Parts: sequence; C-alpha cells; structure tokens
Amino acid sequence: MSAQSKIFSELVDQLKKLPSIGKKSATRLGLHLVNQDKAVLQDLINALQETKDSLIRCKQCNHISETELCGICSSPTRNNGQICVVENIRDLIAIEETQQYNGKYYVLKGLISPIDGITPSDIELDKLLSVIVDQDMKEVIVAISPTYEGDTTVFYLSKMLADYPITMSTLARGVAFGSELEYTDEITLGRSITARVPYSNIYKETE
Amino acid sequence: MSAQSKIFSELVDQLKKLPSIGKKSATRLGLHLVNQDKAVLQDLINALQETKDSLIRCKQCNHISETELCGICSSPTRNNGQICVVENIRDLIAIEETQQYNGKYYVLKGLISPIDGITPSDIELDKLLSVIVDQDMKEVIVAISPTYEGDTTVFYLSKMLADYPITMSTLARGVAFGSELEYTDEITLGRSITARVPYSNIYKETE
Repeated sequence: MSAQSKIFSELVDQLKKLPSIGKKSATRLGLHLVNQDKAVLQDLINALQETKDSLIRCKQCNHISETELCGICSSPTRNNGQICVVENIRDLIAIEETQQYNGKYYVLKGLISPIDGITPSDIELDKLLSVIVDQDMKEVIVAISPTYEGDTTVFYLSKMLADYPITMSTLARGVAFGSELEYTDEITLGRSITARVPYSNIYKETE
Repeated sequence: MSAQSKIFSELVDQLKKLPSIGKKSATRLGLHLVNQDKAVLQDLINALQETKDSLIRCKQCNHISETELCGICSSPTRNNGQICVVENIRDLIAIEETQQYNGKYYVLKGLISPIDGITPSDIELDKLLSVIVDQDMKEVIVAISPTYEGDTTVFYLSKMLADYPITMSTLARGVAFGSELEYTDEITLGRSITARVPYSNIYKETE
C-alpha cells in the first residue's frame, strides 16, 4: 500500500477536473470532505445523483429543467410576448435574480464566430426563430455581451427578424449605478454623454 | 414549478457548503457539472461515495486511511525511529511530496491554545507520547508553524519529552530557496544572518 490512500487520490483527481480547481485546492477540498459528517457527504452525493439522473435541457429555451418544458416556459403567469436572448444560463440566472423581467428566455448554444467557424446553424438560431414565430412573440430583448462575437450574433439576429413584426431591443448601456465617474472607462462615459436621457426618464425607469 | 429547478438549487446549496465557494462560484460549478457527460458526473459521485464509505483515520497517526493502520504507519521500509509531528494532513502531504523524509508521522488534532481553552489533552498529546514510547522512537521532528499556538505546543512537547532519550529537532529556518533577499521579511533575514551556517553545510543538505 502506498503512502497515500488510493481512494483519497481518486477523490482529489476528480475534484481537480472542476473549473478553476488546481491540485492544492483539490487537496484542500478533499480533506474538507473527509472531515465532514457522513450525512453531509451523503447530501452532496444525493444532489449530484439527482443532477445526473433528472436534469435535462428545456426543449424550448435550452434552460436546465427537470421536465420537458422548464418552469419559465411552462409558466402561465409570464409574459408570452417577450423573449430575452442570452448567451448562457449564468446570464439567464443573473437576469432572473433582478426580478425585473417577466417574459420568456432563449439560451443560445454559443455565439456566431466566423474565425472559429461557428455559424448561425451551429448555435440553432433557426430554432429561436421558430419559437418566436410559433409563440407569436412581440419583442425580442437581446442581452448579449458587446464583444466581437456578440455583436456579430446580434447583427445576424436583426437581419433574421427584419421581415417579422417584432420589436428588437437591447439592454440599456451607460454608467453603472453606484459607480464613480472618474473610474468609468472612456468609451462608456463618452457614449453615456452622447446618448444622454431626459432626467425624468431615470425616475420612470426605477419606478 | 418555480423558475429555477429545485434539483439545481439543491446542488448549488450543497456546493456552497464547500470552503471558499460562494454563491456565484457554486452556480458556476453547478452549471459546469450539469454540462458534463453523465459518466464524468458518475466518476465524481463514485469517488465521494468511496470517500464516505471507506476512508477512516489511522489509529496510530491520525492520517486518512482505508485500513486501521495507514500506508505510512504499516510500511516496513520506512524509518521507525523518526516521527514527524504536524498540525494537519495538508502539511503531512506537503512534506511527503518533497520525498526527503522516510520516517513516520503524527497528525495533531489542533494546537494548544490557552486563549481558546484548548489543552494538551484536547489534542491528544498523551497518545503521541505513547506512540513515541511504544515504538521506541529516537527522533521527534517538529514541523509546526511558528505561531503563538504552534510555539506553545512545541514548548509543551519539549517539556513532555525531556525525560526520555529522544532528540527533538525542527525544520530549518532561513531564507527560502529561490527567494530574493530584498523581499525577505526582516525577522527571517535578521535571524538568517545570526544563525548563519558554514557554506559547506549547504552542499551537504542538498546532496
């Protein structure tokens, strides 16, 4: 038998596969888990087992779900005329947590990237179009990061929706709430002056 | 059904219990796990299950083990006359990885701390003494951090062992290999000059 327990080495190897967990962190996590009560460890095992057995992707919006249609897509109280297009589930969760949006979502399977050879069909934009048309959506809210790939995707989306009676909107851009002007980057500050809004609008937005 | 999957929320809650994992990190980890192949998830579940079912503490040295005596305590090739006393298993693993030590270990269950009411019997120093005496150890190597609690523990240990024919040694202190003198803290640098060693000794140590 070697100096190190095989079971513990295997645990550390598995933990090392998690994102941003290196060898030292994996060892620390592993020792933490070894020191836990068996019941605590079992709770974690159960949660992982349930995740493995029961979590699927919503067939309409690609959000994680336990059922064919996720809680948002199947909700009768949410606005069926609005759809918010996001890059990934993290962004969906972030928007949900603001509690400021009550429409539907669509999670893209990536962004268009000609350099990496990722085309509109790779990210299933046709599926998004059919959801929008089938559900008779009135407004598409684009909540995609303003990167090169993001802008390309939004541009393609606007072309795709041009022939439909749909309003396309995007997140408001400007100085973040609570931030100090002197530390705001030049581009954001410059555009915020150019695209200044009537003072009364700010009140309206936060009401 | 709420917007968020209950199973996913439970997974995030469990991951949040891990050390230095906050809500955002737990969500990221959770989404990473959801996106994994089922086989990868099963490997992690199996590793945790084995940890829960089979890992115990070595009855002699307190290291994690699959058997009553750990691989180090039961090894016939390791030096039975030396015992290295460490604060925790992380330190044991760190020393093992240097491959410079071939004796036994003893993992303390904490450090003596009069302020926190932790006494020598709380950290089972009597068990350490009986291991040392029963196994007829010749040298006790103290590898404990030089903190207030660490120094208190080492002092108590030296008193405890004073009546036995045992050499007590500690890790060499000085300027770390590869470090720059100008960034070494004053106390370390000052003591390294006071406790300077013959140049030939450095060669001997690294041979």
